[in-house]
Amino acid sequence: MQTNSNLNKKEICNKSMYELAEMLFPINRSLTGDGIKKSFDFFCEIHEEFKKIIFKTGEKVGDWDIPYEWNISNAYIELQNGERICEFSKCNLSVVGYSIPINKTLSFDELVEHLHYREDLPNAIPYVTSYYKKYWGFCLEYNLFKTLKKDEEYKCVINSTLKPGKLTLIEALIPSKKGLKKDIFFSSYLCHPSMANNELSGPVVLNEIIKYVKQNSSRKYNYRFVLLPETIGSIAYLSRKSKKLIEKVICGFNLTCCGDNNQYTHIQSPNGNNLADLALKAALIGKKNVYSKSFLERGSDERQYCSPQVNLPLCSFSRSKFGEYKEYHTSLDNLNFISQEGLLGSFNVIKNIIDAFEFGIYPMTITLGEPQLGKRGLYKNLSYHVAGQKRACGIRSDIIAYCDGKRSIFEIAILTEVPLNTLIEELKILLNFKLIKLI
Amino acid sequence: MQTNSNLNKKEICNKSMYELAEMLFPINRSLTGDGIKKSFDFFCEIHEEFKKIIFKTGEKVGDWDIPYEWNISNAYIELQNGERICEFSKCNLSVVGYSIPINKTLSFDELVEHLHYREDLPNAIPYVTSYYKKYWGFCLEYNLFKTLKKDEEYKCVINSTLKPGKLTLIEALIPSKKGLKKDIFFSSYLCHPSMANNELSGPVVLNEIIKYVKQNSSRKYNYRFVLLPETIGSIAYLSRKSKKLIEKVICGFNLTCCGDNNQYTHIQSPNGNNLADLALKAALIGKKNVYSKSFLERGSDERQYCSPQVNLPLCSFSRSKFGEYKEYHTSLDNLNFISQEGLLGSFNVIKNIIDAFEFGIYPMTITLGEPQLGKRGLYKNLSYHVAGQKRACGIRSDIIAYCDGKRSIFEIAILTEVPLNTLIEELKILLNFKLIKLI
Amino acid sequence: MQTNSNLNKKEICNKSMYELAEMLFPINRSLTGDGIKKSFDFFCEIHEEFKKIIFKTGEKVGDWDIPYEWNISNAYIELQNGERICEFSKCNLSVVGYSIPINKTLSFDELVEHLHYREDLPNAIPYVTSYYKKYWGFCLEYNLFKTLKKDEEYKCVINSTLKPGKLTLIEALIPSKKGLKKDIFFSSYLCHPSMANNELSGPVVLNEIIKYVKQNSSRKYNYRFVLLPETIGSIAYLSRKSKKLIEKVICGFNLTCCGDNNQYTHIQSPNGNNLADLALKAALIGKKNVYSKSFLERGSDERQYCSPQVNLPLCSFSRSKFGEYKEYHTSLDNLNFISQEGLLGSFNVIKNIIDAFEFGIYPMTITLGEPQLGKRGLYKNLSYHVAGQKRACGIRSDIIAYCDGKRSIFEIAILTEVPLNTLIEELKILLNFKLIKLI
Repeated sequence: MQTNSNLNKKEICNKSMYELAEMLFPINRSLTGDGIKKSFDFFCEIHEEFKKIIFKTGEKVGDWDIPYEWNISNAYIELQNGERICEFSKCNLSVVGYSIPINKTLSFDELVEHLHYREDLPNAIPYVTSYYKKYWGFCLEYNLFKTLKKDEEYKCVINSTLKPGKLTLIEALIPSKKGLKKDIFFSSYLCHPSMANNELSGPVVLNEIIKYVKQNSSRKYNYRFVLLPETIGSIAYLSRKSKKLIEKVICGFNLTCCGDNNQYTHIQSPNGNNLADLALKAALIGKKNVYSKSFLERGSDERQYCSPQVNLPLCSFSRSKFGEYKEYHTSLDNLNFISQEGLLGSFNVIKNIIDAFEFGIYPMTITLGEPQLGKRGLYKNLSYHVAGQKRACGIRSDIIAYCDGKRSIFEIAILTEVPLNTLIEELKILLNFKLIKLI
Repeated sequence: MQTNSNLNKKEICNKSMYELAEMLFPINRSLTGDGIKKSFDFFCEIHEEFKKIIFKTGEKVGDWDIPYEWNISNAYIELQNGERICEFSKCNLSVVGYSIPINKTLSFDELVEHLHYREDLPNAIPYVTSYYKKYWGFCLEYNLFKTLKKDEEYKCVINSTLKPGKLTLIEALIPSKKGLKKDIFFSSYLCHPSMANNELSGPVVLNEIIKYVKQNSSRKYNYRFVLLPETIGSIAYLSRKSKKLIEKVICGFNLTCCGDNNQYTHIQSPNGNNLADLALKAALIGKKNVYSKSFLERGSDERQYCSPQVNLPLCSFSRSKFGEYKEYHTSLDNLNFISQEGLLGSFNVIKNIIDAFEFGIYPMTITLGEPQLGKRGLYKNLSYHVAGQKRACGIRSDIIAYCDGKRSIFEIAILTEVPLNTLIEELKILLNFKLIKLI
Repeated sequence: MQTNSNLNKKEICNKSMYELAEMLFPINRSLTGDGIKKSFDFFCEIHEEFKKIIFKTGEKVGDWDIPYEWNISNAYIELQNGERICEFSKCNLSVVGYSIPINKTLSFDELVEHLHYREDLPNAIPYVTSYYKKYWGFCLEYNLFKTLKKDEEYKCVINSTLKPGKLTLIEALIPSKKGLKKDIFFSSYLCHPSMANNELSGPVVLNEIIKYVKQNSSRKYNYRFVLLPETIGSIAYLSRKSKKLIEKVICGFNLTCCGDNNQYTHIQSPNGNNLADLALKAALIGKKNVYSKSFLERGSDERQYCSPQVNLPLCSFSRSKFGEYKEYHTSLDNLNFISQEGLLGSFNVIKNIIDAFEFGIYPMTITLGEPQLGKRGLYKNLSYHVAGQKRACGIRSDIIAYCDGKRSIFEIAILTEVPLNTLIEELKILLNFKLIKLI
């Protein structure tokens, strides 16, 4: 990465989401260590609102202890002919995350205990970690594995350090301009080495959301953003901030795997019907390939944010769901798997939700009976029948009919089957014409 | 129509619903004007309880203004050979409703802008109106349209007037004999020219309901009935009476297109579960060809009565649903499309609902455990098993089991799948035997 | 039966459920009379906690009157050739239950009015009763019936008595060891003559439950058990105890037809969602051939316990449902139809529910965020992905995620699709590791 020194803040701000992902891709990240710190610095440079929250190794967070800080400079396996494979410098997935240092020559049988590959994806290097159990290992293509000779010796070198240090996360609060003490919350994670969808997509979309929120000079809500290492990071974050989050957050999203352009996935909260669930469901109306998954299929930081003692009104949003696309957690989850188009699709889903909140989520029709749309040029005047139409009265009339001040804008979208962005556009018109008010 | 002078009130009262529709069919009705007034007078003569509620042109009602009064004496298109087509005197659908006066000779190209036909129904004259935009036009069969020559001229004559005047509706309150201050409400509309199902069926069924309610000398509920021009009429009515309706109405129905004998249709309220929804659902148990439609498929005065600021516990009832039968809004919706049998089917649905209210809608079994039906001759005494029976204990026992004083009679019908009229008959027997009480 | 005198209490206690059913099978039982009394005595001898509750003939219970006590010593039909058929001494189903005494010679045509057979089961003797209408009759195989000659006379003898006497039921309260004033309630019935599934299975399973509950020396709940004659017995019982039951019972089950090994059946309460419904639904997760039946398909004492004025949180549990297996209410419902395996399957379902209550039904995860399972050896440490897994995080993690202190253990089982016994085992581990608490 050639970022911080060579590019100034403004230049980075003008980069597309995809370009940011490209810049961050080469860095070796883990829960801790230089790579994730460097990646955090990258975002801190873009948004000065980001503050670091730091935890020391051994610090108790929730039920967990902050682990050692892990750094790695070099690693490889040397064959008897002097050839090196599994070189960390060529692909940082080649080394099991949090591997302890090693410098040892092993027989094939000894080595094989420390090798990870995927027979079903013979050209992929799998992504494996062992954060909480002392271990070392290498990951390689199954096709490469098959070439290894059983009667040779293998020199295994991992130059890593596991030492007391720090775990870092960053949080930004973009405050309401109206003094409203309610937060919309976004979280994503940045602890994965060179993989693209999982997980650079979430951070770059989150970054774009911050930009969008900041340019709104009359925003009603506080917007709270965190980037952190997955699981231990969100637990550490909750150990400091859960009280505040529980008090203030009215809607939150965990963003993960949102860079491909194949589908949209809603991973529901445990009950599946909190405000975030409704908002996301509404924002996905009219999209193709929408999948709604039970909390039983969770797997990212919604696990922490929706855990019983926290229970934030949050759900997770993905394009192709983590764990369900074949490239997941392998070297195939690379920059070819994601696209600016895919990232933009994700951003727009969240943008529509933000727009809804900023517009006002409880609209109410104020006329007694239906308004006369015709006199405002809002309706065709000539009544004329065509048989078999399903939505009998048109979208505009449907929206007016369902805005009762009690249904949220998200429930109205769901009930009327009107895409959220269309609904907001229509509501703006109706508000302009003083046909609705906001409760 | 030869009514008022030639037939006295009693003679009209003895007419069947179908015969009333026959008498009213020829009149040219619209939102305003002599035809709808004459039609209202017809019903006022039958039921002295009907009171006129009058609005002046320009009066503000809800978001609307009462329009000009429209009258028409004559209209036609004269061909070059002197032949006349689209003669209002032959079919009042031939002229677009609320056409401004015209007397002008036009080329074919000019004329065609003012002609309406249905290619899909080449022998039908469509029903078209332009209440709120100044316009004139003719409606004709597509087969006739095809014979018009492109190089001829057409003399278009519409002798109509659009002047400040009045909009009228009629309301009848048949009061409770017990002083109960709760209303059951019925609405239908009478603004359509010579079409039968839409909309003479609703008014004649409503008339039959009034007769039924009046002959009950111990009725518990108030019954409130309105006949009005659709949309503007119900909005005008609400502008005067919404407070009272919101306070008193516990169940209401909009009656429309209830004269054919093809199916039964429930057009649900926005939430689909108010007392009227449950009542209608219960009353349709056991009928063939029952369709339940979302409020998204609304299209009649439920639009006004269920609008957010009014939100009456009301739904709409139809046989073939407006907008979904091919004859709808054409000259094919004539007296052949409806039948006394069809009208009676509709009346009986509503009659059963009224019977339920009058009986008492919260029955409660009073025995501790099941009553012994056998000793009262209410059960076969010899227990004998036949395998595979679905309703294990019989209808009577099911009803007893579900009457807990909290479930309404309508919910009991729905839960036990017992037709509402059967349920009421059974409950009468159980009440007679002091096995239930009414809460 | 050779029981009471020959076997001591301890020996009976060691008998399997199936063996108990074998011992009780030959006795002729009815609502009243010596047979059911002898059967009650059998259970009273095993559990001294059983107390008799006695009602006199003519006593008013709910809407019913306690009937005469019926006893029968002998009955048969004698053919002209002296041969006897329908001998009570050979099969007690041969006589219609509650038959009045008769000693009369009849023509075939007269006799046939008093004969009951099943053409669809030509080798079965059906079970017929006439408790509340004076009648006498015989039941026989259709194949036997076909051999009767139309021109012969038949001597019908029934030596029965119908006299003022007593109706008995037995109740046992096994009290909480912790002073908790909440009851778990079980009911079954014992009024059927020699049939096995319906109904010796319920009483012997109930007996096994009592043994299970008694051996728990630290039980939290009161356990209340009744054995009674069906319908009149439960109504009589409610006439004395309904107040107490309504006050104390938090969950109850009627046990019937639970001795075969073909399926599991849940007969729901009227609303289908009380605590017993949820508990039974949870306890049947993961079983094959589970059927959930509406209250419309009820037919046993849930009819009384769930009647409107009582409305206990109870449902019925069966293997093959009464009325739905072909052997039901015939001589084919014999000891071959049930098995120890089938009875044990039923017992285990109830055992799991009791275990859940005794464990505590509102578990709550106490960590902030997820606990770290790995450090306790409760989780595999190496994260490794296999695509397409449906339960993404494993059963243990799912349970932790859903234990919020508000969902009952039964709802957690249903939501996580974890069998109730597995759930309890997991919760015990989690409690041991202080990862959950009980609310």
